[in-house]
Amino acid sequence: MTNNEVVQIARNAHPTQHKTTIAEVVLRGLDLVERLMLDVTSSDVNVLKEASHHILKAGGKRIRPQLVLLSYLALGGHDIEYAVPVAAAVELVHTASVVHDDINDHGIIRRGRPSVNSIWGRTFALLTGDYLFTKVYELMAPYQDANVLLAEGTVALVEGETLQAAAVKDNNLTRETYMRIIDRKTAALFKSGAQLGAHLVGAADEQMRLMGEFGYNIGLAFQIVDDILDLTGSDEQLGKTSGIDREQGKGFASVNDDAIADSVLETLHEKLSDEETIARGRAEAEALVAAAISALDGIPESPARSELVQLGNLVIARTK
Amino acid sequence: MTNNEVVQIARNAHPTQHKTTIAEVVLRGLDLVERLMLDVTSSDVNVLKEASHHILKAGGKRIRPQLVLLSYLALGGHDIEYAVPVAAAVELVHTASVVHDDINDHGIIRRGRPSVNSIWGRTFALLTGDYLFTKVYELMAPYQDANVLLAEGTVALVEGETLQAAAVKDNNLTRETYMRIIDRKTAALFKSGAQLGAHLVGAADEQMRLMGEFGYNIGLAFQIVDDILDLTGSDEQLGKTSGIDREQGKGFASVNDDAIADSVLETLHEKLSDEETIARGRAEAEALVAAAISALDGIPESPARSELVQLGNLVIARTK
Repeated sequence: MTNNEVVQIARNAHPTQHKTTIAEVVLRGLDLVERLMLDVTSSDVNVLKEASHHILKAGGKRIRPQLVLLSYLALGGHDIEYAVPVAAAVELVHTASVVHDDINDHGIIRRGRPSVNSIWGRTFALLTGDYLFTKVYELMAPYQDANVLLAEGTVALVEGETLQAAAVKDNNLTRETYMRIIDRKTAALFKSGAQLGAHLVGAADEQMRLMGEFGYNIGLAFQIVDDILDLTGSDEQLGKTSGIDREQGKGFASVNDDAIADSVLETLHEKLSDEETIARGRAEAEALVAAAISALDGIPESPARSELVQLGNLVIARTK
Repeated sequence: MTNNEVVQIARNAHPTQHKTTIAEVVLRGLDLVERLMLDVTSSDVNVLKEASHHILKAGGKRIRPQLVLLSYLALGGHDIEYAVPVAAAVELVHTASVVHDDINDHGIIRRGRPSVNSIWGRTFALLTGDYLFTKVYELMAPYQDANVLLAEGTVALVEGETLQAAAVKDNNLTRETYMRIIDRKTAALFKSGAQLGAHLVGAADEQMRLMGEFGYNIGLAFQIVDDILDLTGSDEQLGKTSGIDREQGKGFASVNDDAIADSVLETLHEKLSDEETIARGRAEAEALVAAAISALDGIPESPARSELVQLGNLVIARTK
């Protein structure tokens, strides 16, 4: 099934019976993103298809594709199908990194399911991640300049993961290192996602900048909340192997500028009980979301802009 | 340094003093490819830069970028600098796959040097491979349609590696599986490389087809010779951990249609001493190169076409 066919089926399945709301457009877009991701990963090499579909069907928050679609709509985009492959590509970058991350972290649960490496082993998990990365090229091939934006976010993501692994290895996680890690590991791809939506409408430089600021700050907040949840949540609640991040010495617990010299794990467990630290993290995430939302003031008011604001608030309200 | 700056420096460094031969143009192109690959992988994250430069500076045959450059020139391309980033991207796809392959195969020597995983460990090797993949996006971003061609080759490569790992796991390497593996693992990217060069000149469909046929057959021959060398060569001679492929049950030794039911290793060691098998492999590689070269009959005669013929012959003549 080609992308066009997917789009055509979706069009037929949703005859317009009433004035469609932005929320409905986004839902339809997200539905197309799901179908497209499954479609492009339907390799005739069984293990690649099965492992890809396993992780994709496990769901996830899909916050990155939402960001692409909403940014596109908020800046005047009308053809949601045009933005769908880009939204799918951004989510596939994230999915590939998750599959590889679980290899490196020995994660056994992801999105409430056994991780790819725990079912298929390291070798196939590595290849599945590679496969997902290669599918990003395929999806992005027609979009030319947009590739530059996605490449930036993807390069940064890999660099951020590497900085994190290096900090763990060197047992050197300062507040500064932590911020440098989440800047690249998470915020950069959020920024790319928000800017990609804007780019597809040919948005002006200033709007690109504002959308980038929105995505970037939301991304930082998202990661801080993620790390707090990792410190405080149970596996069942989170749907992934929690505490891995904690054990790896990453995470938000390191909020001061001193290197953690002793056992990282021990120190972090201490910090874990430090409710003040957690509260400070939440406050920081809230401030970042507030900054993100205020960047949207420079974008014309619209239902899609309101949805972006809601997305920002969701980032701090979530419990898993 | 931007790509343009690299190109500019190279231009200044090579003032035209005599009628430049095709061989010189290709050498200059390859020199630019090297510089560009090092340049785009100069991450400020030290381990990524060091590990990338380690594997890149170890050299390699650079047959894929040669294929891109020569195909471009053979079909009338004049601006070698335009083809350089594409040639670099194809080589980076190959390099990324080599880094990941050495993780899966526990390879400790590659291109005469310790492998990335043996120096930096699995986690950083995985991330280095990912990093190289992401740099391919970056390089290819301006080339739009060309991305489709490279995506095809890259997806096939990952699928081929997966088929191989699956065949090893299931202890099921028939002649048919072997051909299916090398078709994707190697020949597809060679085909992409040859077609990319043609695509950059806007070659006609028929010329694209012929170039694809040339690259594809050269790729099959290359892999067969590679597997024969892996069976017969020493580590010193090959500059990589030999016998890994053999031990993994892949490789050319399986030339009959029966699944190898017993110990793969044992069977392959037996085959290893089977000179007839090796001779048949060589004959097949020679036939493939002959087919590749005859595809070039449909391309106008030129010095670049002659260089392509030479490249084909080199594939079977090489001893490492």
